[in-house]
Amino acid sequence: MKLIRYGKPGREKPGIVLDGIKYDVSAIGNDYNESFFEEDGLQKLAEFITQNKGELTKIGEEDRLGSPVARPSKIVCIGLNYADHAKETNAQIPSEPVIFMKSTTALTGPYDEIIIPKNSEKTDWEVELAVVINKKASYVTEEEASSFIAGYVLHNDVSERAFQMERNGTWDKGKGCDTFAPVGPYLVTPDEIPDLNNLRLWLDVNGKRMQDGTTANLIFKIPFLVSYVSQFMTLLPGDIISTGTPAGVGLGFNPPVYLKAGDVVELGIEHLGEARQEVKAYVKS
Amino acid sequence: MKLIRYGKPGREKPGIVLDGIKYDVSAIGNDYNESFFEEDGLQKLAEFITQNKGELTKIGEEDRLGSPVARPSKIVCIGLNYADHAKETNAQIPSEPVIFMKSTTALTGPYDEIIIPKNSEKTDWEVELAVVINKKASYVTEEEASSFIAGYVLHNDVSERAFQMERNGTWDKGKGCDTFAPVGPYLVTPDEIPDLNNLRLWLDVNGKRMQDGTTANLIFKIPFLVSYVSQFMTLLPGDIISTGTPAGVGLGFNPPVYLKAGDVVELGIEHLGEARQEVKAYVKS
Repeated sequence: MKLIRYGKPGREKPGIVLDGIKYDVSAIGNDYNESFFEEDGLQKLAEFITQNKGELTKIGEEDRLGSPVARPSKIVCIGLNYADHAKETNAQIPSEPVIFMKSTTALTGPYDEIIIPKNSEKTDWEVELAVVINKKASYVTEEEASSFIAGYVLHNDVSERAFQMERNGTWDKGKGCDTFAPVGPYLVTPDEIPDLNNLRLWLDVNGKRMQDGTTANLIFKIPFLVSYVSQFMTLLPGDIISTGTPAGVGLGFNPPVYLKAGDVVELGIEHLGEARQEVKAYVKS
Repeated sequence: MKLIRYGKPGREKPGIVLDGIKYDVSAIGNDYNESFFEEDGLQKLAEFITQNKGELTKIGEEDRLGSPVARPSKIVCIGLNYADHAKETNAQIPSEPVIFMKSTTALTGPYDEIIIPKNSEKTDWEVELAVVINKKASYVTEEEASSFIAGYVLHNDVSERAFQMERNGTWDKGKGCDTFAPVGPYLVTPDEIPDLNNLRLWLDVNGKRMQDGTTANLIFKIPFLVSYVSQFMTLLPGDIISTGTPAGVGLGFNPPVYLKAGDVVELGIEHLGEARQEVKAYVKS
C-alpha cells in the first residue's frame, strides 16, 4: 500500500494511492498517527480497501500533500551512515551508529516550501530513506526488527550546518528548524519494496544532480538500526527513523554550496516516489 | 496554582494542590496537554477552581502521581549551564547554550522508579529546573519570553554517561532511555515563585547530599533560554525546556559514582516540591 495524507497543514486527512490514483479514506476514522499504527491500522486499512475499492472518492490533483504520517513522538536520525558522505564531511566512518533527534515541529509535506531560518547562511539538503515504526519497540533484536516496521518514506533531512556544528553543540540545534523535515509523498509498505538494500536515491538542486547514491552503501542496515535505536529509547508506533544520507550535500563541496531563496530541490528514492521543495527566506508572519 | 496528574501510567487525570491538599479536576474535561495550554487552559482552570473550590473531590494519598504535564512534543535540554558542573565534567563554560533533546518516552512521575537500562554501567542523576511552555513560541525575544511560560517543574535529567559520551554521539543516546525523565511533583505557575533566580536545588543519593546548588548560578537565565531555543525550533504548548544541572553529579566524582539497583534518589527545588525515585535494574517484561 501507499499511504498519503492530504489537505491543509494541521488538518490533513488520510488517503491512499491505487494504480497511480489518489483516493480519500477518511471513512476509516483515524489519521495515520500513533493510535492508527498501534491498533493494527495497516491491516484494517488493507481490509477497508478490499471492501470499498470501487467506491472510493478521488482526491483532486491540486490538493496539497502533507507528511504521510502524522506528527510522531520522535524523529530519530542516523548520522554518517554512508561511507562517501562521512568522507566528504571529513568525518570518520562510525564504529557504531551516530544518533541525533529532529524536533517533530520540523515535519512538513513533500511539496511544501523549505524556509531558510532567520540568521541562517548554511542551509543544506540530505536525501534519506526513513523508516516508520509500526508497534512499540524496546530492546528488539535485529532478527525481529522487520516486524516492527510499518513502511518507508522519502525524507529530506534539511540541516543548518552552522547551527549544527559551529554553535556549541549538539547537532540537534541545526536539524529541527521549521520545515526541515519534508516527508513523503507516501508511506510505502514493505511488501512493495523488492530489495531494500538496492534502492537508488538522488537529489537535484535547480535541476543539477547533487546526490546520487544507493542504499546498497548503507554502513548500518535498516534492521540493525531499528534494533540499535531501541536499545537506547522506546520507539512508539508512527515514530520515524531516518537512515542517513549519501555523498553530495552542500557541505561536501569546496567551497561549500548552500540553499538560497528561489532554489528548487527535487529528490526521490526508487519505489518511494519523488518530492519537490522550493526554498524561501524566512519572513516574519 | 500547583497542577498535578494522578493515576496509572498513561491514564493520568488532572488535579491540583490547594493548601497542601490534592484535588481532582477531571471536570475541566482536558488533560494537561498541548491543547490544554493552547486553549488558555491555565486561565480556565483558575476560574474553575474559584467557582468550585468548596466542592472538589480529594485525591487519595496513595494515588500515584504522574508527570504534571502530559507527554509533550519535545523535551529540550540545556547542557553545562552551571559553571561548577561544567568544571567537574572537564568541559569549558559554553559561549552559548548547548542544546540536546530527550526522547519524550523517557517521561515518568516524580515517585516512579528509575530503571537502569540494559548494558548500562554509568547511570547518573541531574537535578534540574524545567520550564513548561504555554503557547507556540518561534523567534521570541528575551523580553517577551516570560509570557510564553506556563510554569516550572522539578526534573531529574537522568543520564547514561557511557551512552552519552562513549558511544559515538550525540548526547541524545544517553538521555532518552525509559524512565530517564522523572518530572514533578507539580507544575507551579510563575506567580508562586518569588525569585526564579534564587531557588535552591538539591539531590541526595541514599540520604547523602550530592548536589546543592542555586539557580542564582545559572549561566544562561530562563528568559534568555526560551528565546534562544525558539531561534532553532518552534516550541509548542506543553513543551519542556530543562535548564541544566549544578555540580555534584556522579560523573564529577573521582572515581565517578553511578546509580545501582536499590539506590534511592531524592531531590527538590524550593517552591517546586520534592521527588523520590528508587533505582531498579532492567528486567525483561
